[in-house]
Amino acid sequence: MISEKYKKMCSTPSVIRELSVYATERGKEIGYENVFDYSLGNPSVPVPDEFNKAIRELTEELTSSQLHGYSPNPGNPEVRSIVAASLKDRFGLPYEQKHIFMTSAAASAIAHAVRCVTEPGDEVITFAPFFPEYRPYIEQTGAVLKVVPADTSSFQINFDEFEKLMNRNVQAVLINTPNNPSGIVYSSDTLKKLARILEDKQKAYGHEIFIISDEPYREIVFDGVDAPYVSGFYDNTLSCYSYSKSLSIPGERIGYVAVNPAAKDADMIVSMCVQISRGIGHNCPSSIIQMAAARCVSMTSDLSVYEKNMNLIYNKLVELGFEVVKPGGTFYIFPKAMEEDAKVFCEKAKNYDLILVPGDTFGAPGYFRMAYCIDTEKVERSLPALERFVKNEYGAK
Amino acid sequence: MISEKYKKMCSTPSVIRELSVYATERGKEIGYENVFDYSLGNPSVPVPDEFNKAIRELTEELTSSQLHGYSPNPGNPEVRSIVAASLKDRFGLPYEQKHIFMTSAAASAIAHAVRCVTEPGDEVITFAPFFPEYRPYIEQTGAVLKVVPADTSSFQINFDEFEKLMNRNVQAVLINTPNNPSGIVYSSDTLKKLARILEDKQKAYGHEIFIISDEPYREIVFDGVDAPYVSGFYDNTLSCYSYSKSLSIPGERIGYVAVNPAAKDADMIVSMCVQISRGIGHNCPSSIIQMAAARCVSMTSDLSVYEKNMNLIYNKLVELGFEVVKPGGTFYIFPKAMEEDAKVFCEKAKNYDLILVPGDTFGAPGYFRMAYCIDTEKVERSLPALERFVKNEYGAK
Repeated sequence: MISEKYKKMCSTPSVIRELSVYATERGKEIGYENVFDYSLGNPSVPVPDEFNKAIRELTEELTSSQLHGYSPNPGNPEVRSIVAASLKDRFGLPYEQKHIFMTSAAASAIAHAVRCVTEPGDEVITFAPFFPEYRPYIEQTGAVLKVVPADTSSFQINFDEFEKLMNRNVQAVLINTPNNPSGIVYSSDTLKKLARILEDKQKAYGHEIFIISDEPYREIVFDGVDAPYVSGFYDNTLSCYSYSKSLSIPGERIGYVAVNPAAKDADMIVSMCVQISRGIGHNCPSSIIQMAAARCVSMTSDLSVYEKNMNLIYNKLVELGFEVVKPGGTFYIFPKAMEEDAKVFCEKAKNYDLILVPGDTFGAPGYFRMAYCIDTEKVERSLPALERFVKNEYGAK
Repeated sequence: MISEKYKKMCSTPSVIRELSVYATERGKEIGYENVFDYSLGNPSVPVPDEFNKAIRELTEELTSSQLHGYSPNPGNPEVRSIVAASLKDRFGLPYEQKHIFMTSAAASAIAHAVRCVTEPGDEVITFAPFFPEYRPYIEQTGAVLKVVPADTSSFQINFDEFEKLMNRNVQAVLINTPNNPSGIVYSSDTLKKLARILEDKQKAYGHEIFIISDEPYREIVFDGVDAPYVSGFYDNTLSCYSYSKSLSIPGERIGYVAVNPAAKDADMIVSMCVQISRGIGHNCPSSIIQMAAARCVSMTSDLSVYEKNMNLIYNKLVELGFEVVKPGGTFYIFPKAMEEDAKVFCEKAKNYDLILVPGDTFGAPGYFRMAYCIDTEKVERSLPALERFVKNEYGAK
């Protein structure tokens, strides 16, 4: 019988998706180059040539079964070793092959990580503003997502509200730094304080509490910003990585879970992921994509364009009188809207062909997200539209 | 807190995996060429050159975002249209793009299909002998797997036992033809009878009952065998396909769910799969692999070797006095063991470096599986060992 649960979910529209569809439709009327589409977090810079080259070479170097045969469920062993060595080298934790579980990007990494450390009915805490897909990611496992309201002064963690939400049923805390949608990087102080609280709570409650660290933007960090490695602060950490943004290959679905070698049951968690895989139909990511990513393990796309775009937008926003925290990374910025209801604000912006996403979607009403993974030339052309919008609708500063 | 459920599962060994590890270890002692390893269903024939060529060309023809950008969650629209057109052309059902959901091979297809048509606590029926992964595939959704004992005379469906198991809680029936492990293809008569019973039961129970048809071996059918298309017999059918075996690319994880256009809510099921994806971390298969598979949609590897191997083995088994049903496809054969306990039989076979899998694993004790996706030359060399084993242990016929 058709599942009523999933049938009902089909009728809940995605705000971001709807805005993106609107932008495409509007583009058909006035030319897409004239729509300032800040809706989607789709990397705009090309993949490094080396990645495509690796793919071509792999088809010529390896036999059919070496290249296209089953990779073991936790991933290609050589690829896992390369990832472990690279993480060990960069971040100083003693990762080995056994700590790495290859996944179909961060969504799949989180799907495994959550199931590893929660049972249905358990609570998982995350911090606003947060990526809206966290809700289905968590809730479809049977766990319950609790959201700590944003500290809008800095978009670091609102610790007072966090401590209020903490209770014995919390088994995991899901964080995302550099953050979508705020662009903020959690400081060492933030991570130290988070770790200290969780260590105290682990003792008080008599069970582990895991950090699930969603890190697809780890490589997109701007000049002068210190981006500490989360797992270095807290043993019970599962790092969920994706190459989608660093190599501009979101369609290839490749990433991993890296288990902190000092975590509880660290030697077992990858085997648990294998068991979880059987139930969710994962098995392993594409073998050729695993191998190509491993050949590019120390590489990124040219990510400098995102910082250039950020500076252009940030400076204009400040000039126009917006309240905004300067991003430390990603390709997002999350300013305060110029009226209370950000949905109304973003609706008005459409009249200037500016496609902005209301912060309500991210658990932070009154703010809006701009995804500036678009051509710099278009960012430059969008700024006069932004200025017209603000001056016409809200008066000059 | 670490999930006890998945932790416990880690200690349940896979019989097939253990035999495969044994074969590899034994290979280190006597040379792997001397181990007659019939344990694993890993395609032995190479991928068609066209597939690798398609991959190379795609990296040169398309821009980075066209090739590696996010594909929509149900899959690349053009790929879905190509798959739909190909199925329509071959099997005469009016498939359109909207009926095709691209998946990471059959495991992922089944993961989505089961969740589409069952709720936790519902029953799903399958037929012995069956692929052992069906148990985690079904049970980890919360549904309950019920197994109809084998009709060992033909390995078609044991309808008497099936009707005994049918009840109001059964929401889906999972079938696999051509079948792993028996190699048998369900006849038109079998499928007609199954469809008639299910149609009656749908009326009697007042709800749909879906067939989930697992079809990774659809293209591996031997000379003179009629392999009817399941979905042509019964409207409420979800066909779960994988290119793993037909193109020899099991590591690339590519397949689809094809919704029968006449199924209940046929226009919605792909959207439901999208919702399911969010919870299980699937999103979509690798974009380059989707596109390369679409370019090879009417192609297979040279599958003739499997039939050659089958005939060699089947004839020898008959000559040695085995009770065995001749396979109509796949690369498996499922003879009756020469003593009651097939586990003991397979253990003795190891002394002749024959690696056979006891049928207990497939829900059919007393039988054993040989996966003959190995070089024909090795099959030929294995036959004297098989003869020695049978004559020494069980006497000549």
